[in-house]
Amino acid sequence: MYKAGPVLSVSHGMGIPSIAIMLHELIKLLHHAKCSSVTVIRIGTSGGIGLDPGSVVITRQAVDATFKPQFEQLILGKNVIRSTDLDEQLANELMQCSNEIAQFNTVIGNTMCTLDFYEGQARLDGAICSYTEGEKLQYLKEAYDAGVRNIEMESSVFAAMCKLSGIKAAVVCVTLLNRLEGDQINTPHDVLVEYQQRPQKLVGHFIKKYLGKV
Amino acid sequence: MYKAGPVLSVSHGMGIPSIAIMLHELIKLLHHAKCSSVTVIRIGTSGGIGLDPGSVVITRQAVDATFKPQFEQLILGKNVIRSTDLDEQLANELMQCSNEIAQFNTVIGNTMCTLDFYEGQARLDGAICSYTEGEKLQYLKEAYDAGVRNIEMESSVFAAMCKLSGIKAAVVCVTLLNRLEGDQINTPHDVLVEYQQRPQKLVGHFIKKYLGKV
Repeated sequence: MYKAGPVLSVSHGMGIPSIAIMLHELIKLLHHAKCSSVTVIRIGTSGGIGLDPGSVVITRQAVDATFKPQFEQLILGKNVIRSTDLDEQLANELMQCSNEIAQFNTVIGNTMCTLDFYEGQARLDGAICSYTEGEKLQYLKEAYDAGVRNIEMESSVFAAMCKLSGIKAAVVCVTLLNRLEGDQINTPHDVLVEYQQRPQKLVGHFIKKYLGKV
Repeated sequence: MYKAGPVLSVSHGMGIPSIAIMLHELIKLLHHAKCSSVTVIRIGTSGGIGLDPGSVVITRQAVDATFKPQFEQLILGKNVIRSTDLDEQLANELMQCSNEIAQFNTVIGNTMCTLDFYEGQARLDGAICSYTEGEKLQYLKEAYDAGVRNIEMESSVFAAMCKLSGIKAAVVCVTLLNRLEGDQINTPHDVLVEYQQRPQKLVGHFIKKYLGKV
């Protein structure tokens, strides 16, 4: 965790359980530190659907692997379903920031959040795979038709916990590949590094604007 | 990842999604490296139920939050249920190793694997908590009655993926606290450091014995 002025930057590890631990502890910290009007933005990488690699997706709704905007959780052994709505106005402000810097393609779309990177995201190149390429593509096309533009592994619990805690939240992820065209990334390293900086550039511009520095 | 002779040691991060990514990549690596007769052992820390802190649990079965020995996974949006059986003979050999080094209490018991550290493990000290202390204790006692002796966040997918891949597997975790007595750890740092070394000592003894060095 790093703090620069009023900005905290925290690494959250991979997957729903890892980011959930960080969020429980961050939300308690913000409470005890008496922070108010907090905005939390997750930035990261993702797999895209039907977008050119390097496109940035601002999440409209975080959806599960059946494309529902909800997060299912087991509490005391019982299923609890929570809403994954994000702040619409914040998403629009971030979109406006991308228009202002005008350096890369940005869209607002749904983000599918899965518990697994390989089978959970219909990849063919994991250690275990029990479906065909045709079944994979059909699933990804159904996701596209449901408004999904990228896939990652943290947005649903992030949206659910921020909403429950009354914290304004957004998810901004760059897409490293178009999953309709393959599973593996062949893009050169320096291009990927530049892709990975795009959510930082966008959110950096938002922060400067918010603080009156632009 | 570190390699020392025929032993690989790999860090897997926190939670089912994180260890699943590592296992997909490790299993592919072992396949391409033409490794055979591989044994994989997860070592780590956990919360205990009804055991003195510092006790080591060798997992009989990895169970879910409803105490069933199974791992549920969404593949192409459909629920797939996989067995979480571990190698019984390997668990017994590890128990024998603990008897030989005779330095700490070790038991064979079931391990509950959850997707969340706070609400998923019935903790009262997360940012969000929707149940009472009584409900928490009732749930943990039901877990104890189902044979659960510790709780962690990786064993179910670990057991399921190793079983599907035909790899002999075991889980050896030390318990840092007795969850029937609280949620927070007040044990001094140096004692916790010694606790954390116990699974390493036990598995280190097993490796030396297996390689004929003891």
